[in-house]
Amino acid sequence: MEKKISLAVIKRLPRYYRYLGDLIENGIRRISSKDLSEKMNVTASQIRQDLNNFGCFGQQGYGYNVELLYDEIKNILGLNKTYNLIIIGGGNIGQALANYMNFQKRGFNFIGIFDVNPRLIGMTIRGIEIYDIDKLPEFLRRNNVDIAVLTLPKNNAVRITPIIVEGGVKGVWNFSHVDLKLPSDIVVENVHLTDSLMTLSYKLNNEGYTDDIE
Amino acid sequence: MEKKISLAVIKRLPRYYRYLGDLIENGIRRISSKDLSEKMNVTASQIRQDLNNFGCFGQQGYGYNVELLYDEIKNILGLNKTYNLIIIGGGNIGQALANYMNFQKRGFNFIGIFDVNPRLIGMTIRGIEIYDIDKLPEFLRRNNVDIAVLTLPKNNAVRITPIIVEGGVKGVWNFSHVDLKLPSDIVVENVHLTDSLMTLSYKLNNEGYTDDIE
Repeated sequence: MEKKISLAVIKRLPRYYRYLGDLIENGIRRISSKDLSEKMNVTASQIRQDLNNFGCFGQQGYGYNVELLYDEIKNILGLNKTYNLIIIGGGNIGQALANYMNFQKRGFNFIGIFDVNPRLIGMTIRGIEIYDIDKLPEFLRRNNVDIAVLTLPKNNAVRITPIIVEGGVKGVWNFSHVDLKLPSDIVVENVHLTDSLMTLSYKLNNEGYTDDIE
Repeated sequence: MEKKISLAVIKRLPRYYRYLGDLIENGIRRISSKDLSEKMNVTASQIRQDLNNFGCFGQQGYGYNVELLYDEIKNILGLNKTYNLIIIGGGNIGQALANYMNFQKRGFNFIGIFDVNPRLIGMTIRGIEIYDIDKLPEFLRRNNVDIAVLTLPKNNAVRITPIIVEGGVKGVWNFSHVDLKLPSDIVVENVHLTDSLMTLSYKLNNEGYTDDIE
């Protein structure tokens, strides 16, 4: 049986990946957990603990091989594969995501956008067509869609959920301001922007919180 | 001295606030921690623990007064005040945020957008003008800006940071894909979309993680 890893650790992996990518760009090939910890503003022991969850990548007194560690984390994050994504909700956030080139570079390919708005349907964004939402079930039957990105109002998101479940989508990147009820074999990652802004507002008004690493 | 509250607890407050808002909309005036826990998919003891951090809002065997609790959390989150925000980076994400009405409804007022792109400068989005980034220092002197929203490429975000620090901004809502170095009296909330997508990718490829409540 695999060891269960805390989501808090997992959420730090992309951050390690980002810093290691910067080190590679700057030609740094080896780094101690101490130096990495200073750059990332976490403790060296946190770094060692986090990475030990996935196997032992460093050698005592020798540090980490940056490129090896980068590749390991890339594999752990599943970034050695490609994914087909659709965006449901062609409004501002949906269009912004479709326009963001970096996702494609990492292997996340947007293959369709869906909306109810006749003014949007038929448009293309970076070569990605906006389809009538009515075509979603058929599109899901004909295409292998890994991830549905939900960028639509919360009530519509709830209504569309059974269709994406039925259509075999494996993961949901949910920007809609609602917690979706999904079968346990479909994974979800929420980006609740309003919640995030409220958290900032809390921090502006209160000094009394422990400054965990996010 | 105030008790230090964990950021994990704080990040759940907007979620409580959202659910309580839904209850109010549906005319529900009182709820037990058990019923709330079923709706929110967290344990009742988690709810009691979380809310006890901020004082005792419930009565044993009686439950929570929904409206009172909603108002309390609103105050804790600082949503009883209004905030002036500027968006730095008038690209897709910046425009999407400017267009999102819900922030304004909650007291977050966008008073300016800044960009380097001459094609964007002078445009208005929902009545909010896009200014030349060169005008940022003067704008910050003349206006009371609480929050700077950073939606620009990471290198530009790093370059602009001293200006917003100098300009007296109190909080940063950071969408740029970099961890900013800020003085300790400026609070920050990061929305790293690429990190979030990578976390989803991890979840798609691994069953071995503990499903913490986010």
